[in-house]
Amino acid sequence: MTYRAPLNDMLLALNHGAGLKAAVEAGHYGDFDPDITAAVLEEAGKFATDVLAPLNKVGDRNGVKLADKKVTTAPGWPDAYKRWTEAGWNAVSGPETHGGQGLPLAINAACTEIWSAANVAFGLCPLLTLSAIEALDAHGSQELKDIYLGKLISGEWTGTMQLTEPQAGSDVGALRTRAERAPDGSYRITGSKIFITYGDHDMTDNIVHFVLARLPDAPAGTKGISLFLIPKFLVNKDGSLGARNDIYPSGIEHKLGMHASPTCTMTMGDHGGAIGYLIGQENAGMRCMFTMMNQARLGVGLEGVGVADRAYQQALAYAQDRKQGRAVGSKGSGSDAIIAHPDVKRMLMQMRSLTAASRSICYATAVALDVAVRAKDPAVRAEAAARGALLTPIAKAFSTDIGNEVAYLGVQIHGGMGFIEETGAAQHYRDARITAIYEGTNGIQAIDLVTRKLGANGGASVFKLLDELTDIVRRVEASNDPAFGTTGAKLREALSALERSSRWLLEKLGTAPNDALAGATPYLRLFGSALGGCMLANEALAARSENETAGARHVALARFFAETFAVQAPSLEKTVTDGADAVLAAEAVLVA
Amino acid sequence: MTYRAPLNDMLLALNHGAGLKAAVEAGHYGDFDPDITAAVLEEAGKFATDVLAPLNKVGDRNGVKLADKKVTTAPGWPDAYKRWTEAGWNAVSGPETHGGQGLPLAINAACTEIWSAANVAFGLCPLLTLSAIEALDAHGSQELKDIYLGKLISGEWTGTMQLTEPQAGSDVGALRTRAERAPDGSYRITGSKIFITYGDHDMTDNIVHFVLARLPDAPAGTKGISLFLIPKFLVNKDGSLGARNDIYPSGIEHKLGMHASPTCTMTMGDHGGAIGYLIGQENAGMRCMFTMMNQARLGVGLEGVGVADRAYQQALAYAQDRKQGRAVGSKGSGSDAIIAHPDVKRMLMQMRSLTAASRSICYATAVALDVAVRAKDPAVRAEAAARGALLTPIAKAFSTDIGNEVAYLGVQIHGGMGFIEETGAAQHYRDARITAIYEGTNGIQAIDLVTRKLGANGGASVFKLLDELTDIVRRVEASNDPAFGTTGAKLREALSALERSSRWLLEKLGTAPNDALAGATPYLRLFGSALGGCMLANEALAARSENETAGARHVALARFFAETFAVQAPSLEKTVTDGADAVLAAEAVLVA
Repeated sequence: MTYRAPLNDMLLALNHGAGLKAAVEAGHYGDFDPDITAAVLEEAGKFATDVLAPLNKVGDRNGVKLADKKVTTAPGWPDAYKRWTEAGWNAVSGPETHGGQGLPLAINAACTEIWSAANVAFGLCPLLTLSAIEALDAHGSQELKDIYLGKLISGEWTGTMQLTEPQAGSDVGALRTRAERAPDGSYRITGSKIFITYGDHDMTDNIVHFVLARLPDAPAGTKGISLFLIPKFLVNKDGSLGARNDIYPSGIEHKLGMHASPTCTMTMGDHGGAIGYLIGQENAGMRCMFTMMNQARLGVGLEGVGVADRAYQQALAYAQDRKQGRAVGSKGSGSDAIIAHPDVKRMLMQMRSLTAASRSICYATAVALDVAVRAKDPAVRAEAAARGALLTPIAKAFSTDIGNEVAYLGVQIHGGMGFIEETGAAQHYRDARITAIYEGTNGIQAIDLVTRKLGANGGASVFKLLDELTDIVRRVEASNDPAFGTTGAKLREALSALERSSRWLLEKLGTAPNDALAGATPYLRLFGSALGGCMLANEALAARSENETAGARHVALARFFAETFAVQAPSLEKTVTDGADAVLAAEAVLVA
Repeated sequence: MTYRAPLNDMLLALNHGAGLKAAVEAGHYGDFDPDITAAVLEEAGKFATDVLAPLNKVGDRNGVKLADKKVTTAPGWPDAYKRWTEAGWNAVSGPETHGGQGLPLAINAACTEIWSAANVAFGLCPLLTLSAIEALDAHGSQELKDIYLGKLISGEWTGTMQLTEPQAGSDVGALRTRAERAPDGSYRITGSKIFITYGDHDMTDNIVHFVLARLPDAPAGTKGISLFLIPKFLVNKDGSLGARNDIYPSGIEHKLGMHASPTCTMTMGDHGGAIGYLIGQENAGMRCMFTMMNQARLGVGLEGVGVADRAYQQALAYAQDRKQGRAVGSKGSGSDAIIAHPDVKRMLMQMRSLTAASRSICYATAVALDVAVRAKDPAVRAEAAARGALLTPIAKAFSTDIGNEVAYLGVQIHGGMGFIEETGAAQHYRDARITAIYEGTNGIQAIDLVTRKLGANGGASVFKLLDELTDIVRRVEASNDPAFGTTGAKLREALSALERSSRWLLEKLGTAPNDALAGATPYLRLFGSALGGCMLANEALAARSENETAGARHVALARFFAETFAVQAPSLEKTVTDGADAVLAAEAVLVA
């Protein structure tokens, strides 16, 4: 079962759910020509179907190998990566100053979904390179940019992000990797890192590592962390590759999923120290990391969307093909395809509508991040930046929760066959699992949402968004379209629940912060359900104004989401506002 | 990380949540001595910890092998199985007439949870043998019983259940395996079956297969299916083993989880036909299957409980050990164990309370099935049988959904380590996945609940249960214990939602059955959440009347469940009653 990019859904989500069309019309996208969007996505879809999707299972089965301090990827992967760079896909949103196409993040977001759907383990590699590009572009010296940026943007070299150490996972400040100043202005890095994605591989002739380390005289915690660029091979003045640097993969992990993506333990300093170059200022490494965090988190959210869509497409095809039993009221003779059974319909509608909602949230985040740098008006930029910051943890956590839930349903629809690896449904389920963990666990996203994004400005970003969403609900109600069923009422109640729980959390942040933290995860779910529901309704309104048949489909999808997911908002509100005492009693409960 | 049976929780659930104590006191358990319960469970726990738990990872890593038409299990498995039978664990609930201990199903249910927690792939083998025992005991001829029943009860031989064929999964009636009458009164079976659990292995010297097949002159569909006993080795008159029968494993599946449990394709008839013996009457095989279905489904529900508890125990230990970051208001110096963070507390409380609720539901099902055969009064028996029938699909589906959800959280609490197979959290997640599928998918359980269990008697079984649950809520409210927080209100609303949605479904079953079917899965979830919430509250009431400290713990646990899960009932009700239109629109929506 291959993958086909759902171009109509993607364009609807981009233009209407995420608001790209309105932002372009308002002039916030400068001279970007929105007419190219469809063409870019169509080409991306072709490349994904032809080159990446066929390697998804190959990569899962073969995994990666480490021998003689070198990682070998699965058969076909180096060639696919070569085609990837040659076709220019690595450079979609890279800066034009160094060979990138300078397209909006929103376009690249849709592409990232496509790569993730076709082959999430492959797509993860350029996602990390993109973070490296962002850090280097924002904080690197001109000299480093001139040497490395073009190669990273083209994809000729890939990038890694090296934060984690055994004692320093979510708590990055606890890291111990050591950097010493060298007389020539470079640094010598010693230490080791774990969980380094694509820490080594055989797809390019060089790899540019971005490593967090601590200077000998650095303050403790996150204020004493610096960011270094450490190339696998040093680069000569003429751009040719020089000596092998002292950074090596010393182990690879045997993982639940993402088998084709090497997860390396990296060792630096066995031969005198890896030569590294400072990015930004000494002890300001965390700031450099924060720069790229929004986009990296959005990228992982889009992995969730992509895997969900892949799982959905496979489950739909199976449900249309697999015959079993007779549905009530069936008019055919013999067995019906299982899609005729209401419970299977329900699962497929869950898969499709959850995927669509998370897609729209991710794309809206990308549009906000675009407008935050592209709009002319500083006030518009500031507001968009706040919106992007607010939406990022939701895009990451809600979408990856959904990636897992949808992949779960994908297995379920396959019945016993879903448990057999040959079928492929289980791979999506395994691959999706890490997306809820890396780039900040989803619990950390929820805490970020409550403490930094809701709490930062007294809830102003949230209440501004609520106004816009309420306007969508008004338009749903004003449509008087009975096909919307109880959509308007469900969304209105969801938004009320969101507003009330936001106010409750704001109050508790001041008076009883642990009560607020106890409700962070249900609050994020509530937020995503209300937001996603409104976005799908907005898309349905746009679709029905353009085309009756497509409109009816999207109205039914929005209605299903509202009546199945947005409807949970009032219950989630109660969990947020009533549930803290019992959560905080945990240590007493969880003995014996 | 090993496993320790949570004896206190299990005894509380058995005696109070599930009502064993009351049933014994009412005389429904005959001469069963309830004082032995704790001792049996303690011994079972020891065996599980010492013998089964250490092999769980070994089995996962090594899996099983098929060569020369023989399946080899993982290292240590045959020896563990030998110890299992020698210790008498296979015979706990087997009939005393053939060497069983004749203990209640309720006791065996608790044991099944223990085996599943320690090693679910191992425990699956005796679970199938138990189904075979049940079928043979209820429907077999005296001659067959004399030959096979004792060996199955002791576990000296294991049993298999062979229903599935490629075209006949959930739709058993579509099977094609063929049985021909032989002159000596036996039958010759030809055909092949897939997904046969423990279809072959090296742990015993014989295997007794129970195979559904169709006679040449049988009516179509489920009315033309007969059940046959087919031994791997024929048995001579003196009980010694004779010739190898014509039934062989011809393939094994590469599965997402349960690696140590062989899932075989079985081929019969390559050498003239497997010799089989009829169980029950010709063409009455489905009735024989239904006999054992309740208990088999309950057994799978208990697998869900067991895997959940294992995942919880591992996650709790990790959360107490792993240090990362500082919690708000922390008084310690340095990093805190992650259990200090409210979001981790929340996940652990979810895991523990979901596990406890599903445990109580499963045990209550077992008590009902016990009373249905053990009580003296036919009216009591009939009512208990209806209760057991009602609870069975909930025990199966709710508990296995929860097994998956809890195992998911177990991975999440481990962070990046959870994605590494070495950690072991991922194995629980993989192993749990099949429990929501086999023995009737959870969607089929939900349909069974709505159409046959709710619908069968105009809802009488449901409304009777609602009365009992309402009484629990009354006692919670009467306790006036502020530690219960909003438990009483949440449970009352949940029961109201359950009653209203039950009535709505009953009406629709008559007028618009597909509307009822569309809501089956959310209804089952609603039912389980309301029921589980009341049971935990009942246990909390009992615990606090016995011991203040333990009481406080169980009150907090019940409160957490009510405020996090039972609180979802009103939303689920709306999904049931408002959501059908959008579900049934699926085929129009899911194009393009």
